[in-house]
Amino acid sequence: MQKIYVVKIGGEIVDLPDRLDEFLVKFARITEPKILVHGGGRQVSDLAKRLDIPVKISDGRRITDKETLRLVAMIYAGLINKTVVAKLQGLNCSAVGLSGADGQLIIAEKRSGSEIDYGYAGDIRSINAKFLKLLIENDQVPVLCSLTADTAGQLLNTNADTIATETAIAMKEHFKPVLHFLTDQPGFMENIEDETSVIHTIDRLTYEREKAEGSVAGGMLPKMDNAFRAVEKGVEAVYISDFSKFPDFASGTRLV
Amino acid sequence: MQKIYVVKIGGEIVDLPDRLDEFLVKFARITEPKILVHGGGRQVSDLAKRLDIPVKISDGRRITDKETLRLVAMIYAGLINKTVVAKLQGLNCSAVGLSGADGQLIIAEKRSGSEIDYGYAGDIRSINAKFLKLLIENDQVPVLCSLTADTAGQLLNTNADTIATETAIAMKEHFKPVLHFLTDQPGFMENIEDETSVIHTIDRLTYEREKAEGSVAGGMLPKMDNAFRAVEKGVEAVYISDFSKFPDFASGTRLV
Repeated sequence: MQKIYVVKIGGEIVDLPDRLDEFLVKFARITEPKILVHGGGRQVSDLAKRLDIPVKISDGRRITDKETLRLVAMIYAGLINKTVVAKLQGLNCSAVGLSGADGQLIIAEKRSGSEIDYGYAGDIRSINAKFLKLLIENDQVPVLCSLTADTAGQLLNTNADTIATETAIAMKEHFKPVLHFLTDQPGFMENIEDETSVIHTIDRLTYEREKAEGSVAGGMLPKMDNAFRAVEKGVEAVYISDFSKFPDFASGTRLV
Repeated sequence: MQKIYVVKIGGEIVDLPDRLDEFLVKFARITEPKILVHGGGRQVSDLAKRLDIPVKISDGRRITDKETLRLVAMIYAGLINKTVVAKLQGLNCSAVGLSGADGQLIIAEKRSGSEIDYGYAGDIRSINAKFLKLLIENDQVPVLCSLTADTAGQLLNTNADTIATETAIAMKEHFKPVLHFLTDQPGFMENIEDETSVIHTIDRLTYEREKAEGSVAGGMLPKMDNAFRAVEKGVEAVYISDFSKFPDFASGTRLV
């Protein structure tokens, strides 16, 4: 089966035009089939502030009320997604920007049953791998933003790491997925103060031990949990690494 | 050849959720291949006002500076496009929302040579009919917003009426296009004060005479010019009519 790269970038790249440009030049050069997933970063909160819309975060997760959902649609699916797609076209890489609503790509469900009401936050129910395959076979690079919809037509805010994970898992049907989470950290570090302490290969047991010892930084936790879910669902190659080293992943962490 | 409907809606529908919902229910019911093109309306100007970004209009056309272009991407490609697409999914009509940048769908060029500098305004160079056909053959309904890009990756603001016209012309290669401009007016009226004065069939000569007599309302002028361009380029069925009558077009104006 053919390889497919699923590469996820977050705010630490997307928010900084120079970093984004530098990354996209390298991403455009990958000759294998590929999918880009991007998160949002600070831009939704910045716009909310300018519009006097209160920003509510609980446990590191955004609470998406109706007004915030509109900003999420504007920034993720509009500004960031189309900026990235147009830049890729400018690099001779024909991209198609998609939210989960487009082509019923990601069917989600409003989160319920948690103690905190996250508002219009969506958990993924299914990924339309057939539609992604159709685009890829026609030389298009899907660029996915972290906005989904439920079957009734309600837009929902969905975590970009989770979208990358579920997309890689879904693509297993047609390709051999390689999943990359790019951050501004060199990988998973034993000691977050020491950049040379990167663990280059980590399994779940070791990770759980590190977690129990409290040596995993807050932001890394959900990313690692997502990444391990991909491993456990059969995605053979899952990496967390520094975007500036892309596409050389050997310096980062491989999850096994 | 099979018929394809290219339907353009503007701010008078998009800005009002009830009207939009009512229209989308009827649009979703069309069983033939179809493409929806939407404009923007007041939402960009409203957001600009809230953000203290000056709104510049010259001759009825928006002057798109860098900040305004960001709002255009947010509102057209983000908020409106994804809201429409998700609503269509909720009506069992699988839609794919696209800007001109996606799939190199519309290649545009920054307007130059006019006396007024319109900023990031794009004139259409080409439409990727093949990509639209691919989506349609795979039971997807393209939903186009009025944002394009040039080949260097610069996003550009482009008139939605023009996008609808050029899309209909481009689809002639594969389909028999039927082009509809929906407005909140009953059609082209001899006397804009009198709704019963709709001219049901009009040719270019009659239109030019009416124009010379000064009896064409301002907003209708560019729409009619666009619509006649489609007729002259061989789109056989071109209509301007009241969205509330949709899909019954007999009450409106057919351009011949």
